[in-house]
Amino acid sequence: MPKRNAFYAQSGGVTAVINASAAGVIQTARAHRSEIGRVYAGRNGIIGALTEDLIDTSRESARAIAALMHTPGGAFGSCRYKLKSLDENRAQYERLIEVFRAHDIGYFFYNGGNDSADTCLKVSQIAQALGYPLIAVHVPKTVDNDLAVTDNCPGFGSVAKYVATSMREAAFDVASMAKTSTKVFVLEVMGRHAGWITAAVGLADDEATPIPLVLLFPEIAFDEAKFLDAVDSRTKRFGYCCVGVSEGLRNAEGKLMGEAGTKDAFGHAQLGGVGPQIAALVKDRLRYKFHWAVADYLQRAARHLASKVDLDQSYAVGKAAVELALRGQNAVMPAIVRVSDRPYRWKIGVAPLSEVANREKMLPRDYIAGDGYGITAKARAYLSPLIKGEAPPPYRDGLPQYVRLKNVAVPKKLATAFEI
Amino acid sequence: MPKRNAFYAQSGGVTAVINASAAGVIQTARAHRSEIGRVYAGRNGIIGALTEDLIDTSRESARAIAALMHTPGGAFGSCRYKLKSLDENRAQYERLIEVFRAHDIGYFFYNGGNDSADTCLKVSQIAQALGYPLIAVHVPKTVDNDLAVTDNCPGFGSVAKYVATSMREAAFDVASMAKTSTKVFVLEVMGRHAGWITAAVGLADDEATPIPLVLLFPEIAFDEAKFLDAVDSRTKRFGYCCVGVSEGLRNAEGKLMGEAGTKDAFGHAQLGGVGPQIAALVKDRLRYKFHWAVADYLQRAARHLASKVDLDQSYAVGKAAVELALRGQNAVMPAIVRVSDRPYRWKIGVAPLSEVANREKMLPRDYIAGDGYGITAKARAYLSPLIKGEAPPPYRDGLPQYVRLKNVAVPKKLATAFEI
Repeated sequence: MPKRNAFYAQSGGVTAVINASAAGVIQTARAHRSEIGRVYAGRNGIIGALTEDLIDTSRESARAIAALMHTPGGAFGSCRYKLKSLDENRAQYERLIEVFRAHDIGYFFYNGGNDSADTCLKVSQIAQALGYPLIAVHVPKTVDNDLAVTDNCPGFGSVAKYVATSMREAAFDVASMAKTSTKVFVLEVMGRHAGWITAAVGLADDEATPIPLVLLFPEIAFDEAKFLDAVDSRTKRFGYCCVGVSEGLRNAEGKLMGEAGTKDAFGHAQLGGVGPQIAALVKDRLRYKFHWAVADYLQRAARHLASKVDLDQSYAVGKAAVELALRGQNAVMPAIVRVSDRPYRWKIGVAPLSEVANREKMLPRDYIAGDGYGITAKARAYLSPLIKGEAPPPYRDGLPQYVRLKNVAVPKKLATAFEI
Repeated sequence: MPKRNAFYAQSGGVTAVINASAAGVIQTARAHRSEIGRVYAGRNGIIGALTEDLIDTSRESARAIAALMHTPGGAFGSCRYKLKSLDENRAQYERLIEVFRAHDIGYFFYNGGNDSADTCLKVSQIAQALGYPLIAVHVPKTVDNDLAVTDNCPGFGSVAKYVATSMREAAFDVASMAKTSTKVFVLEVMGRHAGWITAAVGLADDEATPIPLVLLFPEIAFDEAKFLDAVDSRTKRFGYCCVGVSEGLRNAEGKLMGEAGTKDAFGHAQLGGVGPQIAALVKDRLRYKFHWAVADYLQRAARHLASKVDLDQSYAVGKAAVELALRGQNAVMPAIVRVSDRPYRWKIGVAPLSEVANREKMLPRDYIAGDGYGITAKARAYLSPLIKGEAPPPYRDGLPQYVRLKNVAVPKKLATAFEI
């Protein structure tokens, strides 16, 4: 096989460990110099490919690439840009192939979630249709943990560890204040469609450290009276109560609670904020003092609290993607396969992209407790291993030291521009 | 000196390291068994003393007390309960002395902020007036960092480390999303009266890791047009911008922005939330996509990211309080004295409570940059040492292991109850 270059791009919302996948791809490609030339990264994801704005990762030192292991965010820039279907915008796909051809790219590694798995599949199809030899491998990543086939998604374990730790810590705070002050604490977490992250908040409470929790899943329509009763009974019994609420919580009509269209002090539409809404409800109806937090990007950027398992798996899927490509496997995704719960053992398997693209893995109903406000033993068995182990970044003067790459542009070869 | 018991109580908002001060008091008292009998803790702070609800800390193992070093929140419960002036409610103070007399308490250690420094002083005065031999020592603690005399306040350094780290991490996230998605990120932090915590957000940005920041201090009246200009120019220049806003931000009329009286989806008054307000303003006027986070209790409970310097100092003031008491020093507070900035050196000094009580140490104006949106080199020199060093808690199965004490009640000796 003649030596060809590789293209790698980050897609969609970034995570605390997506750069570990980048490190896995780049280091593994560097270890196979006889088969893979340079690894070009898309500046701002697939947009970099469309506009021929490529980054030459060979200009980065081994040390800089290694530092990606402990650096959150997307080192090459990501984007929210969904390619249309082949029928709708074939020109986009043909442009990709044009750029790939110009830079002799034989390997396409696309690091993202559901949408990008679909894009990756389509790219492999158009390459085939155009007779352009390309191996396309999807590298899984999403804090939403909703990719099909893979047991879990790189990026999720670290968010899970963050929200469980944060809720546990806040619970210790609230418990000490509850006598005369705050009795109810509300933490809003991510996960618009599936309650995986909400479920992870449930890990804050365990046998050794019981915490009175009420979880509000996007899967369970919000029932105000029942919710208030759950909070009230826990607060009366334990003196305080902690509420973990998904940003994707919906009312009985299926409408997102956070988009209930309020106006703020400036007279603007208030966006987001189901957390403060729930807190205000508790205050108004139950008269308990409350505090609320919205973790937002902090939860998915918190590299300082990343899960070691998550970090290892993120690296492993990047490495496996290159190895699969070198074995000629096209239109596939390295998937995490759970071998056992206790002790937790996992390995990397292979999933055809046709089985991954456009599917969503929802939180199983039997992971949610009967009353709808907690998690089951089954959920714990699934979630617990994913947050295991610590992998702190290096610190200097009290702050984590994260790398910024040089991100040197590859000289353009095409005369044509492309409007995105 | 006859051997007498000690009383210790936690007051006001708790911190990630207030229990380290408790450990300092208890371990040091245990090391002086010939002079100090038992250490009784107030259940829920001073309320425990007023209601004779005392906790016998001698029932806790050495291991449990050592575990306080890595446990956030207030292990004995705190309270927001300000004793009135001696004139207004002398009965409260007399009740305290009655309880102390019943349990032969000769040492009063009160762990809190401005209000409790004042209470501690008054308790020492009433004891003297009533001819009851008591040594009262205040143990400093407040995330607000606004106690007089002491160079800094235990609890603040850990919050500072948390907000600087969180903002840095979020900045890496936003920078990768900015091309097609979020360009402005807003983080709301604590500090209603003084901008110490807001200033600490400024540490996220340094020479090695520049980040385009706009800080909104409670000391600087909010100027909408000027603020939008600051955000817009940074976003245009760097592609993104991060805003750190104090919950205590005020408009030109001196009104708290977060209390601007809006209604939420339930029709209730919306409380707090200057962070989302600022974010909505950016969206409305500048049309940039945004995200916002409100760290709330997470920032002051985040023991997993505590500053080692802060932890050491929190322990040291607890230890010093007992040593001062044993030397017969009454109505004083151990204070942190800065010996040098670089290398950072500190020692424990002594402050008379009369110089601490009812004073507030505000953020000096020369810590805030000329344009009002950043911090100066002077602020950096002051703040940087306080976040130094890591002191992670033990983890099990991926989660920090925090101790809960047995908190066994001391049998009551008084027939009288006391209504609080």
